[in-house]
Amino acid sequence: MNYLELNKEKIEQLLDEVNMQCNDVKAQNYKVDISRGKPCNEQLDIAMGMLSDPALLQNMPKNYRNYGMLDGIPEMKQIFADVLGVKPSNIIVGGNSSLNMMYDAIQRALQFGVCGSTPWNQMKAKFICLVPGYDRHFAICEHFGIEMISVPLNEDGPAMDIVERLVENDDTIKGIWCVPKYSNPTGCTYSQEAVERLAKMHTKAKDFRIFWDNAYAVHDLMDQTDKLANIMQIAEKYGNEDRIYEFTSTSKITFAGAGVACMACSENNVKDVISHMSFQTIGYNKIEQYIHSQYLKNVENINEIMKKQKAIIKPKFDKILSALDETFAQDCNIARWTKPNGGYFITLYVLNGCAKRVYEVCKDLGLTLTKAGAPFPYGVDDDDSVLRIAPTFTSNEDLEIACKILVLAVQKACLEKLLER
Amino acid sequence: MNYLELNKEKIEQLLDEVNMQCNDVKAQNYKVDISRGKPCNEQLDIAMGMLSDPALLQNMPKNYRNYGMLDGIPEMKQIFADVLGVKPSNIIVGGNSSLNMMYDAIQRALQFGVCGSTPWNQMKAKFICLVPGYDRHFAICEHFGIEMISVPLNEDGPAMDIVERLVENDDTIKGIWCVPKYSNPTGCTYSQEAVERLAKMHTKAKDFRIFWDNAYAVHDLMDQTDKLANIMQIAEKYGNEDRIYEFTSTSKITFAGAGVACMACSENNVKDVISHMSFQTIGYNKIEQYIHSQYLKNVENINEIMKKQKAIIKPKFDKILSALDETFAQDCNIARWTKPNGGYFITLYVLNGCAKRVYEVCKDLGLTLTKAGAPFPYGVDDDDSVLRIAPTFTSNEDLEIACKILVLAVQKACLEKLLER
Repeated sequence: MNYLELNKEKIEQLLDEVNMQCNDVKAQNYKVDISRGKPCNEQLDIAMGMLSDPALLQNMPKNYRNYGMLDGIPEMKQIFADVLGVKPSNIIVGGNSSLNMMYDAIQRALQFGVCGSTPWNQMKAKFICLVPGYDRHFAICEHFGIEMISVPLNEDGPAMDIVERLVENDDTIKGIWCVPKYSNPTGCTYSQEAVERLAKMHTKAKDFRIFWDNAYAVHDLMDQTDKLANIMQIAEKYGNEDRIYEFTSTSKITFAGAGVACMACSENNVKDVISHMSFQTIGYNKIEQYIHSQYLKNVENINEIMKKQKAIIKPKFDKILSALDETFAQDCNIARWTKPNGGYFITLYVLNGCAKRVYEVCKDLGLTLTKAGAPFPYGVDDDDSVLRIAPTFTSNEDLEIACKILVLAVQKACLEKLLER
Repeated sequence: MNYLELNKEKIEQLLDEVNMQCNDVKAQNYKVDISRGKPCNEQLDIAMGMLSDPALLQNMPKNYRNYGMLDGIPEMKQIFADVLGVKPSNIIVGGNSSLNMMYDAIQRALQFGVCGSTPWNQMKAKFICLVPGYDRHFAICEHFGIEMISVPLNEDGPAMDIVERLVENDDTIKGIWCVPKYSNPTGCTYSQEAVERLAKMHTKAKDFRIFWDNAYAVHDLMDQTDKLANIMQIAEKYGNEDRIYEFTSTSKITFAGAGVACMACSENNVKDVISHMSFQTIGYNKIEQYIHSQYLKNVENINEIMKKQKAIIKPKFDKILSALDETFAQDCNIARWTKPNGGYFITLYVLNGCAKRVYEVCKDLGLTLTKAGAPFPYGVDDDDSVLRIAPTFTSNEDLEIACKILVLAVQKACLEKLLER
């Protein structure tokens, strides 16, 4: 059914039916939340063994319990290096949160500059924000008063013509946020060409940094998986290796709240970061790092763990995708959505001007979605069309309910909007 | 023997004897380090059980493994609240490092101000540094370009007349570093009067903060223990509760590199800190917090753990103190030292102008001391008389050697100096 071709009478009739179904649903007093990209308990169960296995600790060097080793233990550096395709000397192992490492990197750049550049606090610094994107990235910029310039994220990566033009002409544009693989929230992975252009583009700011949040480096969902080009290697080829700040963590491999994070960057950057970090802390939790290294072992074993993760969450993605497929034909013109091969999110695009209304209707029916607008700087989606769906945390039972509510809400909001025309 | 009364001949004779002994020692090629306040392996062994005890995890709420709970879990808040004599609502539980929480607190104040005040970056902010004091506190100020004003730390706490006069007249003096109990490095504990005056003094800066680094809150060494007045309670009495940023951690209760840290402050401050922290991270490691809470249990049990710590390190302090006692009479006039009831350090005061030389002679003989000057802002001890002794990390065997070298080096440096007169 192509909703755009419906006449007023038909719209009213459909809306009546949808409203009746909404009433039925509302009477059930559901309470379901698909707003955050959190792993579910079954996923978190996978790693429970690492918490109380004396064997993992058997050969731990005694000094790992003490102060020191600011940049992390070699065992964990090696694993992160292998996951990201860099050298262990490119790795700084952190605490439990890669977001914390990103925030700190921005705060350091504001206060001290990077590698000796002028502190970003001393100018009106700007960042390029690909949209739709990750709300917590944008929130950091907003908090620090860094001006955000929205640039579309296409299916194959950033709209590079626009990015290149911007960074070439404005030396106060200091960085860009990227979730290059299984992007939050669209699930897209940047093409080889996009990565190459990011790595080699000319930036007027000599201290420009790509914040490469590779959060979903090993987080495949489907049999068909995406391959992300190695930006560190490519940047090195063009002499731009200092441009890259890469981040990842085990948050969605072991425990969301108790994993291990890392930053990967050129040796110049490592030196610069450590020169400040050495005043901030004596070192992160090396016992945690060691236990992780013994549990994760190597990339092959991480991939085995991720297969277990996939077995739990793929059916959840399938459920949402099927519900959308069953309700909305390809030519319906009121809803389309991404079909990611990995990561934690589906992006649902609804008829322009309807996303907020879908959010409200869902809320009214007992389903919490990520706030409409959240994937945009300042929370403003000019088209009011994007919704982020996070299927992982919810139980399969609740996800059935979520699907029912979601498709109803999309129908209701869009039919209402069509009636206004 | 009163060294100041020796004639030149006697000094030369003693110096000859000391030099001969130094030659003997040097021939042994010793390599001993008493430079850092690190626990020894035996101390770290105490807590090993907590790392692989499934019983500790048995009742852990499942959501502790996931994202969230930015300010920490209630179980750990309760323990820190009891240790510090505050309410759980005053506690923010952090990662593994209280230093990191202090650094972040300063960085936030520079970038954003505190509780809505003007960002400290927008002025030439100054801090009062009590001397001798903790080098890492001073290093944070130096790194951020915060000007340091040295004020003497007496046996009963800060020279309060000076502190009061300074803060009353200069609104760019924004804070003071304090290690109020078993101070680093003198081991002194602030008197009730000193705490009271700090809590009630008039500060021209409305956003003045006392950085109350209560690192050694439960770290008794001797049968006679010091009691520290509860500054949060006293400050509240004077309506100055927002003035206090208190910090502590389990670094020297469980693992130096893998403990749990906290910040304690008024509810206004908690709200202010969290309003920024919420952009920095989704939460610290709650599994770590939970394991700690189950292992530590309560204040009584912590005191039991600390008795085990004491049993290991008291003999080390005794060894140093005895060696000094045996070599230097009370009226020797070239060396005096503190006799702390707790903490991690002994401060050794040598004849003015001799501390650096003692450090060098020790180094030459194979003993690494904390650098002379380290306990002072910018690393400069005007009197060149203070040395920090950290006995805990070294084995008892090596500590014998350390004592031998230390007393020789003090004699040598001071005799050389006396000869110059």
